[in-house]
Amino acid sequence: MSIIYNFSAGPAVLPKEVLQQARDEMLNWHGSGMSVMEMSHRGEEFMSIAAKVESDLRELANIPDHYKILFLQGGASSQFAMVPMNLLRGKSSADYINTGQWSQKAIEEAKKYCAVNIAASAEDAHFTYVPALDEWKINPDTAYVHYTPNETIGGVEFNWVPDISQVMGGKADIPLVADMSSNILSRLLDVTPFGLIYAGAQKNIGPAGLVLVIVREDLLGKSIAGTPTMYHYKTHADHNSMYNTPPTYAIYIMGLVLTWLKQKGGLAAMEAINISKSKLLYDLIDSSDFYQCPVAKSDRSRMNIPFTLKNTALDNEFLKQAKARGLLQLKGHRSVGGMRASIYNAMPYEGVMTLVSFMKEFEKIYG
Amino acid sequence: MSIIYNFSAGPAVLPKEVLQQARDEMLNWHGSGMSVMEMSHRGEEFMSIAAKVESDLRELANIPDHYKILFLQGGASSQFAMVPMNLLRGKSSADYINTGQWSQKAIEEAKKYCAVNIAASAEDAHFTYVPALDEWKINPDTAYVHYTPNETIGGVEFNWVPDISQVMGGKADIPLVADMSSNILSRLLDVTPFGLIYAGAQKNIGPAGLVLVIVREDLLGKSIAGTPTMYHYKTHADHNSMYNTPPTYAIYIMGLVLTWLKQKGGLAAMEAINISKSKLLYDLIDSSDFYQCPVAKSDRSRMNIPFTLKNTALDNEFLKQAKARGLLQLKGHRSVGGMRASIYNAMPYEGVMTLVSFMKEFEKIYG
Repeated sequence: MSIIYNFSAGPAVLPKEVLQQARDEMLNWHGSGMSVMEMSHRGEEFMSIAAKVESDLRELANIPDHYKILFLQGGASSQFAMVPMNLLRGKSSADYINTGQWSQKAIEEAKKYCAVNIAASAEDAHFTYVPALDEWKINPDTAYVHYTPNETIGGVEFNWVPDISQVMGGKADIPLVADMSSNILSRLLDVTPFGLIYAGAQKNIGPAGLVLVIVREDLLGKSIAGTPTMYHYKTHADHNSMYNTPPTYAIYIMGLVLTWLKQKGGLAAMEAINISKSKLLYDLIDSSDFYQCPVAKSDRSRMNIPFTLKNTALDNEFLKQAKARGLLQLKGHRSVGGMRASIYNAMPYEGVMTLVSFMKEFEKIYG
Repeated sequence: MSIIYNFSAGPAVLPKEVLQQARDEMLNWHGSGMSVMEMSHRGEEFMSIAAKVESDLRELANIPDHYKILFLQGGASSQFAMVPMNLLRGKSSADYINTGQWSQKAIEEAKKYCAVNIAASAEDAHFTYVPALDEWKINPDTAYVHYTPNETIGGVEFNWVPDISQVMGGKADIPLVADMSSNILSRLLDVTPFGLIYAGAQKNIGPAGLVLVIVREDLLGKSIAGTPTMYHYKTHADHNSMYNTPPTYAIYIMGLVLTWLKQKGGLAAMEAINISKSKLLYDLIDSSDFYQCPVAKSDRSRMNIPFTLKNTALDNEFLKQAKARGLLQLKGHRSVGGMRASIYNAMPYEGVMTLVSFMKEFEKIYG
């Protein structure tokens, strides 16, 4: 086959080394005679895999012991309900920051369970920026503050972590909750400002069908009446994510990804690479009148880079020629239009270079 | 490696041909240059995979169009809540048949949402039989009747499908709901007596992390207030299981399993093989005083065969020697003790023959 580069927003490209190892171990994991898919989740082989995934993640992101790490299912979309069901803890309202479509989905679902206060919103400018912290109107009685550090569709990323107690003029024990689905493990991560972090795996972690949750232990065990057993975080925390059969193969692939990340130098090294990869593409866009990116410069995502052509009539030609060069899945989300290049951890630098070269050539011909 | 036979109750053995194909396609599915794990679920490649899985399943089990096929997550344990949340339809109680531990889990979860009437129970004899249909005490106003056609832990299987209208003395429009996690696709299946069938994939269908739901369309859309969006069957039915990112790789493996099933001759052929495999083992057990099976002969599972040694002090020696022969995961569930051989579709006849030979030899030495 000829080389392709897959710019899908998720499920997304995985490191070649991970797929090669998964291939080589498919029928016989470490001499066990079994595929990881065939292993009892309670057998010693899989238990050792799961334990290593957890310890590698704790090491990579320096996660303290008073945070539980959960391997769940159902996508971030399930978290949109699980967060209020578990974290309201007797309160009747929660604060949300609205920075785009994924924020909005979280907000709509939360409204089933509590009053939602939109503490800040970027809707006034079509979600092309991050509202400054000093404009956030936090309800002092909120159960938590939820935000989306990276909006996969809009290509807007927080380059800072909100300090809620600062907004509240000093002390405030309000848990910060983040949907990190599309930027987790792409940059340095300090979990201690957060009450809860969740992330669908299918962008930077592994295959679809696995959701990672990192939650401060003291927040568990206070879910609302009627919460299904499988929607209680505590159910999974109390059973090391083995209350029922977890998505074993996805957890195994996540483990291979974490090993790869460690070999690459961990999150600091990954952040440096991601800065340089995204700079390559943004620099081209900004140096040209032919391409535009609608997002405010300070709030641009390193993971998902939306861009438009000055002449939108050329969109299809652009996508057609890109595909012929092996540059796949560049069509923008229908709500934004134009193009979107998702360049997660596993997208090699050469992939972005190839895209940039193609964009320059395309501009030369059609610009 | 030497040959091993994996008798795990789930996740369980998969057909070797399936794993070989998954291995060969791991880095490049059908010349796409991508692994199935890397494909956008909305791209044409994965859409074609998902469509074929659905049509193959419809063909294998002859599923009519007024049944929706859903690919969900969260295990059968999530279905224990989803069933009452979706199927109560304004009623306040539901009937359950209690034939063992999985029935009981379904019952406990349903009690969160409605009154539960235990219409029949085998608890009086330690769950070693199936209560006869004419003893079922169905509440005429029940929302549905739930049962577990195969109890994975107890090794009890229904060899008949309950005709609820017969119990009710004629006409009755009471949906029948079945947890077929451990025997789906192991025998001929007519879905038309059922309102809803669900099954965790990790026994006869594919990897853990996928739940198959087959539901009669007219039952959808009436879920109780507070049901999370992801717990509405209708959410998934309306979006062909693509409301959010489905567990794509698990669906792909399921597709390979269905192709394998078709090549083997479909469900009728599979049922014949499963009858002969289980007969081989039960015949040995019944011909010996050394081994016992506690389950009533008419209600014995073809999938999960629990057996005990007359002298339980020999259990560990049995397991140790079995393991040395490559006969793995034979330890019985802690609640039942002794041994359990799970012999799902993918367990080859040779695997059961090897187990039976070993058991004969073991009896010769220790009997």
